[in-house]
Amino acid sequence: MMKKSENKISRKIGSIPGTLIHIGKKGKGNVKVSSICYNESHLEEKVFDANEAEFDANSNNQVKWINVDGIHQVNTIDQIGQAYHLHPLLLEDVLNTYHRPKVESFDKYLLFTLKMLGIDAVGKHIISEQVSFVLGKNYLISFQEREGDLFEPIRDRIRSSKGKIRKKGADYLLYSLIDAVVDNYFLVMEHFSEKTENLEEEVFENPDEKILKKIHTVKKQLAHLRKSIYPLREAISSIIKEENTLVINDTNKYFRDIYDHTIHIIENIESQRDVVSGIKDLYSSEQSNRMNNIMKVLTIIATIFIPLTFVAGIYGMNFENMPELKWEYGYLTVWLLMLTLFVGMIYYFKKKRWL
Amino acid sequence: MMKKSENKISRKIGSIPGTLIHIGKKGKGNVKVSSICYNESHLEEKVFDANEAEFDANSNNQVKWINVDGIHQVNTIDQIGQAYHLHPLLLEDVLNTYHRPKVESFDKYLLFTLKMLGIDAVGKHIISEQVSFVLGKNYLISFQEREGDLFEPIRDRIRSSKGKIRKKGADYLLYSLIDAVVDNYFLVMEHFSEKTENLEEEVFENPDEKILKKIHTVKKQLAHLRKSIYPLREAISSIIKEENTLVINDTNKYFRDIYDHTIHIIENIESQRDVVSGIKDLYSSEQSNRMNNIMKVLTIIATIFIPLTFVAGIYGMNFENMPELKWEYGYLTVWLLMLTLFVGMIYYFKKKRWL
Amino acid sequence: MMKKSENKISRKIGSIPGTLIHIGKKGKGNVKVSSICYNESHLEEKVFDANEAEFDANSNNQVKWINVDGIHQVNTIDQIGQAYHLHPLLLEDVLNTYHRPKVESFDKYLLFTLKMLGIDAVGKHIISEQVSFVLGKNYLISFQEREGDLFEPIRDRIRSSKGKIRKKGADYLLYSLIDAVVDNYFLVMEHFSEKTENLEEEVFENPDEKILKKIHTVKKQLAHLRKSIYPLREAISSIIKEENTLVINDTNKYFRDIYDHTIHIIENIESQRDVVSGIKDLYSSEQSNRMNNIMKVLTIIATIFIPLTFVAGIYGMNFENMPELKWEYGYLTVWLLMLTLFVGMIYYFKKKRWL
Amino acid sequence: MMKKSENKISRKIGSIPGTLIHIGKKGKGNVKVSSICYNESHLEEKVFDANEAEFDANSNNQVKWINVDGIHQVNTIDQIGQAYHLHPLLLEDVLNTYHRPKVESFDKYLLFTLKMLGIDAVGKHIISEQVSFVLGKNYLISFQEREGDLFEPIRDRIRSSKGKIRKKGADYLLYSLIDAVVDNYFLVMEHFSEKTENLEEEVFENPDEKILKKIHTVKKQLAHLRKSIYPLREAISSIIKEENTLVINDTNKYFRDIYDHTIHIIENIESQRDVVSGIKDLYSSEQSNRMNNIMKVLTIIATIFIPLTFVAGIYGMNFENMPELKWEYGYLTVWLLMLTLFVGMIYYFKKKRWL
Amino acid sequence: MMKKSENKISRKIGSIPGTLIHIGKKGKGNVKVSSICYNESHLEEKVFDANEAEFDANSNNQVKWINVDGIHQVNTIDQIGQAYHLHPLLLEDVLNTYHRPKVESFDKYLLFTLKMLGIDAVGKHIISEQVSFVLGKNYLISFQEREGDLFEPIRDRIRSSKGKIRKKGADYLLYSLIDAVVDNYFLVMEHFSEKTENLEEEVFENPDEKILKKIHTVKKQLAHLRKSIYPLREAISSIIKEENTLVINDTNKYFRDIYDHTIHIIENIESQRDVVSGIKDLYSSEQSNRMNNIMKVLTIIATIFIPLTFVAGIYGMNFENMPELKWEYGYLTVWLLMLTLFVGMIYYFKKKRWL
Repeated sequence: MMKKSENKISRKIGSIPGTLIHIGKKGKGNVKVSSICYNESHLEEKVFDANEAEFDANSNNQVKWINVDGIHQVNTIDQIGQAYHLHPLLLEDVLNTYHRPKVESFDKYLLFTLKMLGIDAVGKHIISEQVSFVLGKNYLISFQEREGDLFEPIRDRIRSSKGKIRKKGADYLLYSLIDAVVDNYFLVMEHFSEKTENLEEEVFENPDEKILKKIHTVKKQLAHLRKSIYPLREAISSIIKEENTLVINDTNKYFRDIYDHTIHIIENIESQRDVVSGIKDLYSSEQSNRMNNIMKVLTIIATIFIPLTFVAGIYGMNFENMPELKWEYGYLTVWLLMLTLFVGMIYYFKKKRWL
Repeated sequence: MMKKSENKISRKIGSIPGTLIHIGKKGKGNVKVSSICYNESHLEEKVFDANEAEFDANSNNQVKWINVDGIHQVNTIDQIGQAYHLHPLLLEDVLNTYHRPKVESFDKYLLFTLKMLGIDAVGKHIISEQVSFVLGKNYLISFQEREGDLFEPIRDRIRSSKGKIRKKGADYLLYSLIDAVVDNYFLVMEHFSEKTENLEEEVFENPDEKILKKIHTVKKQLAHLRKSIYPLREAISSIIKEENTLVINDTNKYFRDIYDHTIHIIENIESQRDVVSGIKDLYSSEQSNRMNNIMKVLTIIATIFIPLTFVAGIYGMNFENMPELKWEYGYLTVWLLMLTLFVGMIYYFKKKRWL
Repeated sequence: MMKKSENKISRKIGSIPGTLIHIGKKGKGNVKVSSICYNESHLEEKVFDANEAEFDANSNNQVKWINVDGIHQVNTIDQIGQAYHLHPLLLEDVLNTYHRPKVESFDKYLLFTLKMLGIDAVGKHIISEQVSFVLGKNYLISFQEREGDLFEPIRDRIRSSKGKIRKKGADYLLYSLIDAVVDNYFLVMEHFSEKTENLEEEVFENPDEKILKKIHTVKKQLAHLRKSIYPLREAISSIIKEENTLVINDTNKYFRDIYDHTIHIIENIESQRDVVSGIKDLYSSEQSNRMNNIMKVLTIIATIFIPLTFVAGIYGMNFENMPELKWEYGYLTVWLLMLTLFVGMIYYFKKKRWL
Repeated sequence: MMKKSENKISRKIGSIPGTLIHIGKKGKGNVKVSSICYNESHLEEKVFDANEAEFDANSNNQVKWINVDGIHQVNTIDQIGQAYHLHPLLLEDVLNTYHRPKVESFDKYLLFTLKMLGIDAVGKHIISEQVSFVLGKNYLISFQEREGDLFEPIRDRIRSSKGKIRKKGADYLLYSLIDAVVDNYFLVMEHFSEKTENLEEEVFENPDEKILKKIHTVKKQLAHLRKSIYPLREAISSIIKEENTLVINDTNKYFRDIYDHTIHIIENIESQRDVVSGIKDLYSSEQSNRMNNIMKVLTIIATIFIPLTFVAGIYGMNFENMPELKWEYGYLTVWLLMLTLFVGMIYYFKKKRWL
Repeated sequence: MMKKSENKISRKIGSIPGTLIHIGKKGKGNVKVSSICYNESHLEEKVFDANEAEFDANSNNQVKWINVDGIHQVNTIDQIGQAYHLHPLLLEDVLNTYHRPKVESFDKYLLFTLKMLGIDAVGKHIISEQVSFVLGKNYLISFQEREGDLFEPIRDRIRSSKGKIRKKGADYLLYSLIDAVVDNYFLVMEHFSEKTENLEEEVFENPDEKILKKIHTVKKQLAHLRKSIYPLREAISSIIKEENTLVINDTNKYFRDIYDHTIHIIENIESQRDVVSGIKDLYSSEQSNRMNNIMKVLTIIATIFIPLTFVAGIYGMNFENMPELKWEYGYLTVWLLMLTLFVGMIYYFKKKRWL
């Protein structure tokens, strides 16, 4: 699932701490930088080409949201870092896409990193994209790995001045963006609960052997989800608890809402994992039951015919002196004997509930 | 069990935080709102039609309990919200029926959400209904998903002035309602302990293959119960611990009583889960024992007759020169030989305790 | 084990909090109330008939121990409650025999509830009886479900003035009684460690199929024990830690001793549970080994004779032109051939260590 | 392993708290009491016969170490207790050899109890001996169950004035003794890691059925070790953390060293347990693989010969009109047919990788 | 894996605490001591032969890094210890290579111990080497077991004055060295994730029996990794949290970075362990499926031919009066009968999905 990419972490080893190296899937095309500046009365949008971008840190009395799509061009990231005086360790974290979700507060800003999760078109793979937010006094910088995100509704809300977003600060914007990401987790979870329901049905109705591989895959994906989401809980909780001048008290209540959602998601993941384990057990039990039944029937057939064959064998012997062979109804008698044996055994097996 | 409903959470995604959207099973009919106003000497009951309801927040020196049956008509909820100045996030939580039980305190009121659980008529499914309480200074608003609840005895107690309820405040009313819900959990647990006892008996007496599915279902239902009740513990505990002007010290002791009950219920659920796992193991072991015994007997029958058939085969050969065939008692001898073999093997198997 | 009784909890549902309803096995006969009043120099014992009992709360400078055998006559309990101004919730807890062990402190007294455990005469069932203690300034009330208890040695000690008990207060009396109950747990645990040792032996020596049921029963009983004793740890610990005017500092050291014993018991239960699980695994492994061996031997017998039968079958064919049949030593040759096959196969299986 | 001894705990039940009763294996011979008195310049050793021993508590400016070998003569213990004003509960703990390791501080001294572990001569059983230390201002009393201990090197160090021991107080002596006991745990662990390595090898090379019993035994022994050592961690940690006038700051660093060792040992035990579980799994898997292979080969032999026997059976029929029987090369043809069948089946099984 | 070496811990038992004894694999050759002295403007490197080494503790205003390769010559370690006034317990820890990673602060310096991990050339074994750092005011002493380390890039950075290292103190140097070791863990983890991916593929494609041994080995190695890395988390965390004059505030941020990496590594190890367990389960399931299928086919073949052989047996009987034998088309009829039986059974098995 993440086969090729994890290797590249080795590129960083041995380098000076704070050196900017992009670790992750190589993006294509130019990095795209865009900005939205707004307050209650004002709105201004710009798109920069990464190479010619100029960043001005001050945007008095307005909230400035700079969005960066693509982090594979290190020098662009470096420019932004210098414009906003960002700590090299922060930039290093932004560039390393294998980071756990976390929040880290620096003097004048804080870094919030999390994973944007989705399901690919075929519905087989989880798409994971790291998003990092730098929240400053009146600006927010978001770094994404690729173009295309879940933030379009929020941009629309800003443009159309719907909701409270235009009246509030950068912290509320951060909340809105994280909320969008976390809300999307519910969609991913719905996908998985459908998947597990299908697996469950399949196990009861017509299980084939591929189901083991499917279960294994779902299990691994859930473990991956867990790893991606679990640390978020701690991160949001530390935003809520820590005294922080960047997130004002009023916004805190909103973060607590996200916190509840995160807990909900995590509980969902845990119970999905339980369900999948349950399905696996069920499959094994069902499978062994099925197998046992087949073997039982087959063995019973053999068991019935082996004694009968023995009887036939007896009268196939060539002794000169075998009186039965000369009886007029000898042959008939043997047939009756065998029939009796046959019926007797069937009856016995039925009585014992083996059939 | 919850197949269709969980999907609808997707309706909310992308919407503005605080937007009121009902998430859950669509209720039928009009939302019914009723109120009871009481103090020690006074009692007044009203029923509103949701569309024409007027809500007046102040009820000086009386406790006002407003009960809302049905939360699928968002505008009614919105009206109540405005009448009592409720925070949009609170209303959002009330409308989202997939919430975990929780308590959240706002400036002038607190929200308490929990699940009303029951067993359906057939005894197969768990019925789960979310109830949210908003506790204010001298009012309590309860939101239920459907008409019909566990609160009738409490209404009777208010009407007939039985117990202390008329002498106490809204916090005691909240306690009484939660107590009714939690008491009902015991009924649900009794249902499950009967179920597991039946399963246990079935495993020992006549297990068939459907039992696996039954066990799987019970397991899933217990997991569902656990998920619905477990967070309640934390919620009640935070009511007890937090300094709170809404819940007075005297009522605190009553909440501690509910807390004990909740712990008791949770322990019951855990031990039921253990028991069900134990039953599953037992079934597997019993099943494989049973199977092994069948196979053993069958294999023994085959094992006895295969050598005998061989002997018969020997004397079925057509060699010209086979002296035994011409012996007068040859045939008899062979019978004796086979009988000896037969008895010998039976004896051997008995001695080895294979039979 | 607790089949019938657990149902009755439903009787309480819907009743007013604080309503006195006895939940548990219906006791027979009259409730018996007795009291012992003592200080260093003085001793007075009384037995009341429940119906005519008069309780006087004050017993200046003496310790008064009131013991109630039987809690099924609610009005007696109510009388005592009124005499000592006990809180209705406390009495409710005393009457509900399905309570977890707990300590709860009220203004002027505290409630301590725990389980008296024993093994019945046949050694098959655990007998569980709830004992509740109400500890006041200079009195102690103990409520038991039935007559007959573990407290006789303590009564003797009081009567004969052995040990320090006559010199100390009600808190020391409480300690002594709890100590007697906890000490008895060791006896129960010894019973179980014998049981598991017997199971272990049985598994290695002559396991039959009933062992599964036995293991299942022991497992359930240990789970029951755990549930009955585990919360005690917390209860005693809270007595030790909480500032409490009822339990003086000197007695605290004694409670710490009980605490140690409780931990010891709990650890014992846990390790017994491990051992029983281990035995179950062992039985399964042993069983499958045994089964495998049987099947192996049986299959080997069949495997040896099937090819031999084939050879015999060959020379049972009736082709006119089968030169071997006319050879003088044909029959003998076939025997030799079959013997070689037989020995060869045996040798092969031995070499492969299949036999 | 501990079969007989655990029973005796019942002797204590019903007795007055603080009554001195020895619980454990009955020791033989007289209790031996010896003392070493030392400071930097002075050294004096005495051996008492238990019956005539006189104990003098004060040993000004010297460290006095009293060692008691054997605790089965209760009156000796009682004498010492009175000489040093030891609390009855402390003596009770010293006499009860089924205690968990613990530390308990009294007013003027503290009690430290732990287990001295060893392997018996045959290398099969764990030998466990309880050692209790009472640490006072300038004395240390050690109680052992039997003669013979791990403290000889420390006595030598005192005698020869090696290391710092003569310059330091009773707390350092306590540290040295505990250190000796804990160091010895490493030896026990080495014994077990050898044992598990041997088991591992045996599983891969020539597993027989006794291995299950061996694994079971090792598992139980590790559980026993864990139970004996685990509480020690807490005990030492409480010595380090608690403000304590008996253990001076300088010695604290040494106790922290023991703490590290204890953690190390516990981690070792845990990982040994994991390894043993792994071995058990491995054995089961290997065993079932092996069994499956045997059954497969046997079944294949049967499967090949059964159709061949059928063919032979066909031409053993006695129909008058069977043209093949009269063909000149009929017999040969049948042989060829059977050969083809044989080769074909072998080829098929090989291709399917069943052989 | 660590077979021989663990034994030597017994050498230490009974020795005086603080005695310097090397515990671990005996190194070869002389211990090599080298030092680098630097500040922003100055750099000086020296190599000492262990026997003639002179250590001067003071290096005013410069950072002095002394590196010791080889700790098997106790007297060298002792010399260094004396030169820098190191506590005997510290030196003991340095010499004991079986220590858990830990940090321990002394008055004027702190000890940091961790494991340098690698994979050997063949890719089969984990190489583990203990590194101990003593961090003083302006010096750092590193003790390694063998020559050859991961620190060459850092030496280069110092020499070439790359990065900030020359501008910072000894604490930053310590950070850089630990960072190098932790970064290398990622390489080790990559090795393992490749290994598990290969195992996974092997299980699905062509599992043979050696895979069990491989899985067992990987499991043990992961357990070993876990044991080596897990305590590091606690150690680094205590550096971050503790007030410490040796690690200045600015460097703290860097240690937090390492902390994040350590958590990441530990999570990776845990999930690898899960994956390996999953693979093991998968293998077992796949294996039993495969086996079941083989047995099923084999049994079906036998089951089909046994009744046919019986039919043939019938007409091999030698009764004088068997009318069928004389029918003209008797033989043909029997063939048809057997053919019908054959086709019927195949059809039945197909319909039942047994084939």
